[in-house]
Amino acid sequence: MTSRLPVAVDAMGGDNAPHLVVEAARIAVERFDTPVLLVGDPDRLGDLGDLPFVPATQVVAMGAEPARAVRKLKDSSIVRGAEAVRDGRASALLSAGNTGAAMAASLLRMGRIKGVARPAIAVPFPVLRSTPTTVLDCGANADCQPEWLIQFAQLGTAYARVRFGLERPRVAVLTIGEEAGKGNSVVKEACELFELDGWAEQCGAEYVGNVEGSDLLAGAADVVVCDGFTGNVVLKSLEGGFDLFRSEVRKVLAASPDVTALDPLFEFWEPGNTGSAMLLGTRGVTMIAHGSSSAITLANAIRTTDELSQVDIVRSLRASVGEMT
Amino acid sequence: MTSRLPVAVDAMGGDNAPHLVVEAARIAVERFDTPVLLVGDPDRLGDLGDLPFVPATQVVAMGAEPARAVRKLKDSSIVRGAEAVRDGRASALLSAGNTGAAMAASLLRMGRIKGVARPAIAVPFPVLRSTPTTVLDCGANADCQPEWLIQFAQLGTAYARVRFGLERPRVAVLTIGEEAGKGNSVVKEACELFELDGWAEQCGAEYVGNVEGSDLLAGAADVVVCDGFTGNVVLKSLEGGFDLFRSEVRKVLAASPDVTALDPLFEFWEPGNTGSAMLLGTRGVTMIAHGSSSAITLANAIRTTDELSQVDIVRSLRASVGEMT
Repeated sequence: MTSRLPVAVDAMGGDNAPHLVVEAARIAVERFDTPVLLVGDPDRLGDLGDLPFVPATQVVAMGAEPARAVRKLKDSSIVRGAEAVRDGRASALLSAGNTGAAMAASLLRMGRIKGVARPAIAVPFPVLRSTPTTVLDCGANADCQPEWLIQFAQLGTAYARVRFGLERPRVAVLTIGEEAGKGNSVVKEACELFELDGWAEQCGAEYVGNVEGSDLLAGAADVVVCDGFTGNVVLKSLEGGFDLFRSEVRKVLAASPDVTALDPLFEFWEPGNTGSAMLLGTRGVTMIAHGSSSAITLANAIRTTDELSQVDIVRSLRASVGEMT
Repeated sequence: MTSRLPVAVDAMGGDNAPHLVVEAARIAVERFDTPVLLVGDPDRLGDLGDLPFVPATQVVAMGAEPARAVRKLKDSSIVRGAEAVRDGRASALLSAGNTGAAMAASLLRMGRIKGVARPAIAVPFPVLRSTPTTVLDCGANADCQPEWLIQFAQLGTAYARVRFGLERPRVAVLTIGEEAGKGNSVVKEACELFELDGWAEQCGAEYVGNVEGSDLLAGAADVVVCDGFTGNVVLKSLEGGFDLFRSEVRKVLAASPDVTALDPLFEFWEPGNTGSAMLLGTRGVTMIAHGSSSAITLANAIRTTDELSQVDIVRSLRASVGEMT
């Protein structure tokens, strides 16, 4: 075990919590040497061996109204996990539970980066033979002001640089036509702001204009910004479409010995495998894993969360919106 | 040939216009006995044989700004086609060209159904082993008022009934959570209106609440309403996702003799094959085919357009929003 701060892991969040989360934590510790701090109900966690934990007797249900749940359930695993980060007992927070609750807990306990109007959820969309395209916001803000999209672009740029090693990420706006001036009123106003100098220089982005829905998996940009309603609908549409596509292809080819050749491709696109979402804009690292993640995927997410906190991604995010200038 | 009114076909619209459109028209006439009226530039149409046509010397380009192009290019094929419907020389209009221009021409030349605030583009999303799910608006109105979504639901209900034979179509609102009260401000307000009595009775719909992006291809509802920005982004995302899935699966299985077993499935999901979009809300039948449609797909679209005008779908659409009550 290393002596650095552990990743606080919400043991109660996810479709198969807590046992699958505990298993993931054990893999992270034993296989990746990543220090973890499980947060959850000791009566339900089972035998933890020597895995460190923080007790939390309450659970925010998957369908619960996030802000209210976080205010009411002060001894919930997600709230205690966020507090562990705030209090310097953990380096970062990871949850596969209620996304809105993770966001609310992070916002209320860790606080916002100065100058950030609203944090956003950044989701890496898998791109074959390339780095992922980071799409944000994927659900934190159903209604957005045009200027928020600029901040999303800045935060997304810092994220793509730190997470995927892109020196000057290409940033685009998601809209309904390639030509300038296409979109709804928020996008149109945002596009005018995107044409102005200053924001791209501040974060080191290359602005490449508009992309359409069909470009999202094709690597047309490294960072794509949109409001959280659009981002969430698109994310779920592609996940649902992929699930259906994969199951039907497997059904048709059930009798073929060649069907296994598709496994790596399907693994690559598997929603749970494409990397956790990160909440960008709070003063701490908060990662949100897919509720259906497998133990190994979750263990990988814990490792990634640890790595991002090790390289102080929050410092880069703060600089991207000018907090330090 | 029958003596009923022909379908006006925009010969100049589509990726391979005019020759592929002329070929499609010929198939429609010869194979389906569907009367057509080609609209286009006689100098470019080639040998039409005995296919009837209306001359139109101008063309609205695919990327042109629709409203302006339609106002300026009064002798364009799309404008002349809409006029043929208005003047009773054609029963309906079909174009595989500039969607916005088809919409603008239809609106300006045929007029709006009384009481309809904004026409919407209805696209059938393919559902395996079932009737398609009609999604609207898929791009006519980037910004929507909540009450427009109610009208989209009514128009979509009439469309699904006439087009797919559903007596009491299930109508849902596209949003970002299954629970009531989830969504952006327009969706939230619309959901309150959807809970009120009256609108569903008027058009004979069954309101089933919210669906998410992941439900769109799963047959969770027969009609799904959303603003035109969201609808267009989702449509393009799924089309782009499918294109990529298909080409990668084919690549992986290139050496397998079993790959051809997937052809029917891929054909089923092929964007060009899933049925033309219809503009709902004008006083005439305007169908919009995919720009990349094959000749046979386009011929099928001509036949469908003819069938919808034969059963007087505009009458049903008018009744759905209460124009006749």
